[in-house]
Amino acid sequence: MARLYSFIPGLFTIFTEKIVLNKRKIINDPVYGFISISSDLLFDLVEHPYFQRLRRIKQLGLADVVYPGALHTRFHHALGAMHLMSQTLRALQEKGHLIWGPEIEAAQIAILLHDLGHGPFSHVLESVLMPGVKHEAITLALMKDLNRQMNGRLDMAIQMFEGTYPRKFFHQMVSSQLDMDRMDYLNRDSFYTGVIEGSIGADRLIKMFDISHDQLVVEEKGLLSIENFLHARRLMYWQVYLHKTLLSAQAMLTQILRRARELSNDGRVLFATPDFSRFIVNTYSLADFENNPDLLQSFNALDDNDVWASVKGWASHEDPVLSALCKGLLDRKLFKISFFDAFPAPEILEAKSRELLESGIREEDLSYFLLTGETTNWAYEKEQDPIRVKMKTGELLDIADASDIPTIEALTKIVRKYYVCWGKNVSLRGS
Amino acid sequence: MARLYSFIPGLFTIFTEKIVLNKRKIINDPVYGFISISSDLLFDLVEHPYFQRLRRIKQLGLADVVYPGALHTRFHHALGAMHLMSQTLRALQEKGHLIWGPEIEAAQIAILLHDLGHGPFSHVLESVLMPGVKHEAITLALMKDLNRQMNGRLDMAIQMFEGTYPRKFFHQMVSSQLDMDRMDYLNRDSFYTGVIEGSIGADRLIKMFDISHDQLVVEEKGLLSIENFLHARRLMYWQVYLHKTLLSAQAMLTQILRRARELSNDGRVLFATPDFSRFIVNTYSLADFENNPDLLQSFNALDDNDVWASVKGWASHEDPVLSALCKGLLDRKLFKISFFDAFPAPEILEAKSRELLESGIREEDLSYFLLTGETTNWAYEKEQDPIRVKMKTGELLDIADASDIPTIEALTKIVRKYYVCWGKNVSLRGS
Amino acid sequence: MARLYSFIPGLFTIFTEKIVLNKRKIINDPVYGFISISSDLLFDLVEHPYFQRLRRIKQLGLADVVYPGALHTRFHHALGAMHLMSQTLRALQEKGHLIWGPEIEAAQIAILLHDLGHGPFSHVLESVLMPGVKHEAITLALMKDLNRQMNGRLDMAIQMFEGTYPRKFFHQMVSSQLDMDRMDYLNRDSFYTGVIEGSIGADRLIKMFDISHDQLVVEEKGLLSIENFLHARRLMYWQVYLHKTLLSAQAMLTQILRRARELSNDGRVLFATPDFSRFIVNTYSLADFENNPDLLQSFNALDDNDVWASVKGWASHEDPVLSALCKGLLDRKLFKISFFDAFPAPEILEAKSRELLESGIREEDLSYFLLTGETTNWAYEKEQDPIRVKMKTGELLDIADASDIPTIEALTKIVRKYYVCWGKNVSLRGS
Amino acid sequence: MARLYSFIPGLFTIFTEKIVLNKRKIINDPVYGFISISSDLLFDLVEHPYFQRLRRIKQLGLADVVYPGALHTRFHHALGAMHLMSQTLRALQEKGHLIWGPEIEAAQIAILLHDLGHGPFSHVLESVLMPGVKHEAITLALMKDLNRQMNGRLDMAIQMFEGTYPRKFFHQMVSSQLDMDRMDYLNRDSFYTGVIEGSIGADRLIKMFDISHDQLVVEEKGLLSIENFLHARRLMYWQVYLHKTLLSAQAMLTQILRRARELSNDGRVLFATPDFSRFIVNTYSLADFENNPDLLQSFNALDDNDVWASVKGWASHEDPVLSALCKGLLDRKLFKISFFDAFPAPEILEAKSRELLESGIREEDLSYFLLTGETTNWAYEKEQDPIRVKMKTGELLDIADASDIPTIEALTKIVRKYYVCWGKNVSLRGS
Repeated sequence: MARLYSFIPGLFTIFTEKIVLNKRKIINDPVYGFISISSDLLFDLVEHPYFQRLRRIKQLGLADVVYPGALHTRFHHALGAMHLMSQTLRALQEKGHLIWGPEIEAAQIAILLHDLGHGPFSHVLESVLMPGVKHEAITLALMKDLNRQMNGRLDMAIQMFEGTYPRKFFHQMVSSQLDMDRMDYLNRDSFYTGVIEGSIGADRLIKMFDISHDQLVVEEKGLLSIENFLHARRLMYWQVYLHKTLLSAQAMLTQILRRARELSNDGRVLFATPDFSRFIVNTYSLADFENNPDLLQSFNALDDNDVWASVKGWASHEDPVLSALCKGLLDRKLFKISFFDAFPAPEILEAKSRELLESGIREEDLSYFLLTGETTNWAYEKEQDPIRVKMKTGELLDIADASDIPTIEALTKIVRKYYVCWGKNVSLRGS
Repeated sequence: MARLYSFIPGLFTIFTEKIVLNKRKIINDPVYGFISISSDLLFDLVEHPYFQRLRRIKQLGLADVVYPGALHTRFHHALGAMHLMSQTLRALQEKGHLIWGPEIEAAQIAILLHDLGHGPFSHVLESVLMPGVKHEAITLALMKDLNRQMNGRLDMAIQMFEGTYPRKFFHQMVSSQLDMDRMDYLNRDSFYTGVIEGSIGADRLIKMFDISHDQLVVEEKGLLSIENFLHARRLMYWQVYLHKTLLSAQAMLTQILRRARELSNDGRVLFATPDFSRFIVNTYSLADFENNPDLLQSFNALDDNDVWASVKGWASHEDPVLSALCKGLLDRKLFKISFFDAFPAPEILEAKSRELLESGIREEDLSYFLLTGETTNWAYEKEQDPIRVKMKTGELLDIADASDIPTIEALTKIVRKYYVCWGKNVSLRGS
Repeated sequence: MARLYSFIPGLFTIFTEKIVLNKRKIINDPVYGFISISSDLLFDLVEHPYFQRLRRIKQLGLADVVYPGALHTRFHHALGAMHLMSQTLRALQEKGHLIWGPEIEAAQIAILLHDLGHGPFSHVLESVLMPGVKHEAITLALMKDLNRQMNGRLDMAIQMFEGTYPRKFFHQMVSSQLDMDRMDYLNRDSFYTGVIEGSIGADRLIKMFDISHDQLVVEEKGLLSIENFLHARRLMYWQVYLHKTLLSAQAMLTQILRRARELSNDGRVLFATPDFSRFIVNTYSLADFENNPDLLQSFNALDDNDVWASVKGWASHEDPVLSALCKGLLDRKLFKISFFDAFPAPEILEAKSRELLESGIREEDLSYFLLTGETTNWAYEKEQDPIRVKMKTGELLDIADASDIPTIEALTKIVRKYYVCWGKNVSLRGS
Repeated sequence: MARLYSFIPGLFTIFTEKIVLNKRKIINDPVYGFISISSDLLFDLVEHPYFQRLRRIKQLGLADVVYPGALHTRFHHALGAMHLMSQTLRALQEKGHLIWGPEIEAAQIAILLHDLGHGPFSHVLESVLMPGVKHEAITLALMKDLNRQMNGRLDMAIQMFEGTYPRKFFHQMVSSQLDMDRMDYLNRDSFYTGVIEGSIGADRLIKMFDISHDQLVVEEKGLLSIENFLHARRLMYWQVYLHKTLLSAQAMLTQILRRARELSNDGRVLFATPDFSRFIVNTYSLADFENNPDLLQSFNALDDNDVWASVKGWASHEDPVLSALCKGLLDRKLFKISFFDAFPAPEILEAKSRELLESGIREEDLSYFLLTGETTNWAYEKEQDPIRVKMKTGELLDIADASDIPTIEALTKIVRKYYVCWGKNVSLRGS
């Protein structure tokens, strides 16, 4: 029996045989090159229909109306976040921190599954179809269901996800202002939109991570990297997530769903896949999900195709409001939109109303074609669990206090904007 | 009136006023950085619903079952090819070739619209639903329709597309073994799959282009670049376009559509968007498209969402064959597949048949779960219009003859492979 | 005679023959792909020995002690800046601005030659060997000399360089807070150091440039790009240009040259190339350069090799101070360095002095081994000619006023740091 | 005492304390992002003057006459190769191969030091100044010297370098047709020249490596990657290493050194650094190096600066041949060069001779200005230790036999070219 030793500087590991992993897999990723799936359990989770569904849910919803490359999915994002998790854990181990094998797997599972509860066009659907039901709650329900199917093998991962695992820094890597989720999505969204200024230098950030007092911290010499990360985040908000044209497309989809529900409530027939129909007709609460396992399955069957197929079907619906909205979204004839620093004055809205009414829109349909909204951009939320910097002195400081760099303080200011969104040249069939 | 001059080495241009382009647009592209839409007509074509539809048709169909990043659309590809066209024309102008403004616009239009006739999952749909109707023919029909809508402004573009424009090299840039289409799709597919070895060095290729005797040619010093281009193409075929797992997924989708048609012919009800239904129920010829403008509109309403929504709807269909195939494709439980150098021997197929019958598949359903196919990889098709090299002596040579480089000759050999594809662990509901 | 037309949207150009450029050249550049030299005059300037000398002068001097990839030269930087100039002028033309052919060539010349007067390790040499002689003055002298050699063909370029050309925006592209020089060096230094967070998104910036009231301005929608540019600049200062280890190496080279001069003044023989000897033995003023053309030639013969060969030769010099300093720099046994927010207190320096004296350094040599210095980082110098933003209203605003973005204001604050630098474990031969 | 476990799938490691590495270092690398120095011994070797000298020796010698970005050093290359070694070993471990900690360190040392014996402009210097002394021999001598200084800690590394270590695959990773040396230099040279077609996809190659029968092998599914690697290598040879202009510059430097030696033998005084003088005046054999430790130190003091400083000093030497050659190289007025498929016919050389004599070159100086040479490009040397492919059947095959891919066979053909090189417009001072 060969008795050889693996390399950990100054230590030895006892091997007795060649380890065989039948399910190892390597996935091409334009962002990181290759992503390794490093255990059989992780492989089985990736193969599970719950996770495969994420292949059909785009990370950025409608953002391709502005950035045609932004078609990446939550599937790829989740794999990318898992990759960053494994890189980060390795870096922490190389700094001498003791991290147990099962912890590594659990942390990877927790981040892999963190978005399982997202529906298609998440923010739109949550607000219209399931008000009050947060995707995090559904994620947790699905993780628990998987845990049952897998005989409790996700226990530790669920603890890390929920924040009940004793070593707190694991939860911070899954969910905090500097977690693997944010790091991957900023990186990935920047890559696929082509907004290269949003790139965050994940490689360097990862080398700067450390653990101190059971907290995920950043070494002092990583101050500039954090600053760069916060700037990149802020830039991505203005340039991508809150882009005017995207907000306009989202507003249109919101109105489409609102109208569809209304018609449905009035007993009108609407083309839709069976599972999607259920959510259009009914309004479910979180309690419904908990009491009705079948509902979770229905939710879990939804993806972007249900929404698009419906929008396509409805484009020829007899209701002129619904069909006009759908046709506009499909052909990218989007609402106009204007930003304001304060809530828009009544005169502005009145003027727009008059315009729309004159263009042939009926009084009772006005609310579908004239909308207001509010957006905020908050690069660093000081009130939340802070990003901690380990100074050379050993002291832990909030990033905003760690340095005299004036720009970090500036990033703690919330920036709020208001917008008005209205249909221009809407052609209502029949009107 | 200011009388200033633009820079063309040794020449002057007379300007008289600032030119205003209201519709200029710049689009982010992760592959090339930015793509400019350089005229109002191009802008209007991009905005047209015919072209916007391409946003919803993925360039590589089902390839994301292997490469999760490969979600780019024909919309983005067409814009990319237009960008390469403008780069190439500029490079040719800088070499002193006289190219007229309207030619530049027409060449960009021709390449922008060259894929307009693609349906969703093009190769699958063409073979099952519309046998004998080539996408090129539909493209031409749609271009002509656009030309009518735009009062003949696409005349020159259509000539270039068809190859009737007097200066032949324009057609070669639109369609040949080294056209802007291939250059963009190799580049873009390599980028989004993450198969970086498939990158073709488009920048350098473009600098090597020249025109000689009204032919698009490559300068002798570009020999290595062409060789690299052909290698990259060959590699992309094996690594991506003919990847086993992708062929398997395509085979499943083919069987799904075949089964759906069969059920439909038997009078069974199938969930589908109205336009897609039409193609499942009927088999149209090219003549139908020509005689029935309404059919072109229906075709033009199809995109990936119709197919996916149907597959999703059919996953719960009562027909066990249809639902098993759909469920398998959705959850990525794909057929197994084996390659052979010759057509697989009868014994192999018989053995597989027995296996499948024993697993519970019925004799009459066997053809849905056991398939054979053939693929070829031909990096350089010597018999076709060749890639021409302009030697330093001025002579034009076929690339395969231009050099003693032994590898180019090797690339002219066609490589043919055969495969068998079969369902493994298919669970038929009700069986 | 063919009478065809080149494409400028809506306009025509009359061509009468194929233009032949014998000297066209394309240069590979890892940063931008390819750089074109677009006229014979530019080609001749690149080939000139004055410009070829820049091949042997590294852009970042000693920075490879920290970043081993940072070996790029002023030659490559100057070509890169010329490339950005041509991109920018093209973008401005595409926005409809009238720019004359000779202006394009002149602007490219001005930026190509803007660093001609840099000596090796510029900041070190200027401070020790030629105090009071700025590299800009030598650049201008060399440009004028070239202009004589080329019979006045650089007249317009020199006007642009000096700021006397009537259209002011040309000078701003050559020298301002957002000129082609800064854009290329930030880009290039970021690339070669591997500090990717310093990348500035030049492509997008260029698309955002415009001209208004004869000023180079940035469109309002480019606000975030400018902000990103300023952040990147600030980051590059801390991370690269003011990196502790680099400052330490520069301090050592400064002391080496100081010591060499002192020994030379004492009549000691020092190995050096003939031209470099001249600068070690003498202290020249700008007037000397003007009165003595031969001196300009000597200066123009200097490059990094002269300095390194001398340092290598001096590593075995009999003077223990000189040899210790040279040996340290060659073997990268660098001075220690500490930063302070205020000028370091006398006690700190006294403690260091005692330490060094105890380690065997003689009182009279102390000033070579214990130094203080000061650095500043000023991302945006508000007092200077500002970066102007053209608001959608048409108004021109200083970037710092253009937006409520709090971070830009933060970047106008100067950050000043002080440092102490001292030899550690210096082994003086003979002591 | 905490008793935690590190993650190796299915195994546990016993940790008892946090491991402290004082000397860990991370180095920025534009090619790979970051390179980690993973042990104190590696750190000390990097810091050693022998290795620091490589900072001043460019990997590609004179190649920046063609590719201005190609200024990377043997220092950076050696670090890059060490990085690939650590990646490869990790990939092999992840496949279950047992690799011992000390082996990992030794393999990294062996590749880190593999180029230690290179002088400046290696091929030129070896051929003129030290005919018969191979750089590998000097590398070994220097490694042994370091081993003495480090008390035998390099024993295993030297065994791996020499091929005497029992596990043969380690030597193959250090030196074979697919070693870490080639992988890094192809990657790095491609990156810094900007010849992107030469990129080899190292990431994927590394994932394809395996060990079988104590041989480094490539998995069958890596066939295309190997093919791509061989193509890239072949392309880099023609495009970079054997580029006409580079060969011409090398020929000039060769003649410069030849002339300098001749003058020196005639008793003429030549400016040079002391160590470089020694090699110009004398011709040393390998035996001299072995018998004379002082000589090794002198050799070890040489770098690019010695050569350039001499060339610069000699540009004003009174000998017209030497000064003309040096001036030409400095100002990039290089020899002309023509390639031939066979050894050039006597008439060609005679015609050139006449031309040169007529231009004023003296009969006895002709051999400095008219030269012939030969180059070969052999992408895959079939006779050597082959690249082995592990087929799915378990069989090991030579890559050239592993596949019916016709192009690999083509790459085993050697391509040989001949060239003539001559001075054009040489201006000899005094003549």
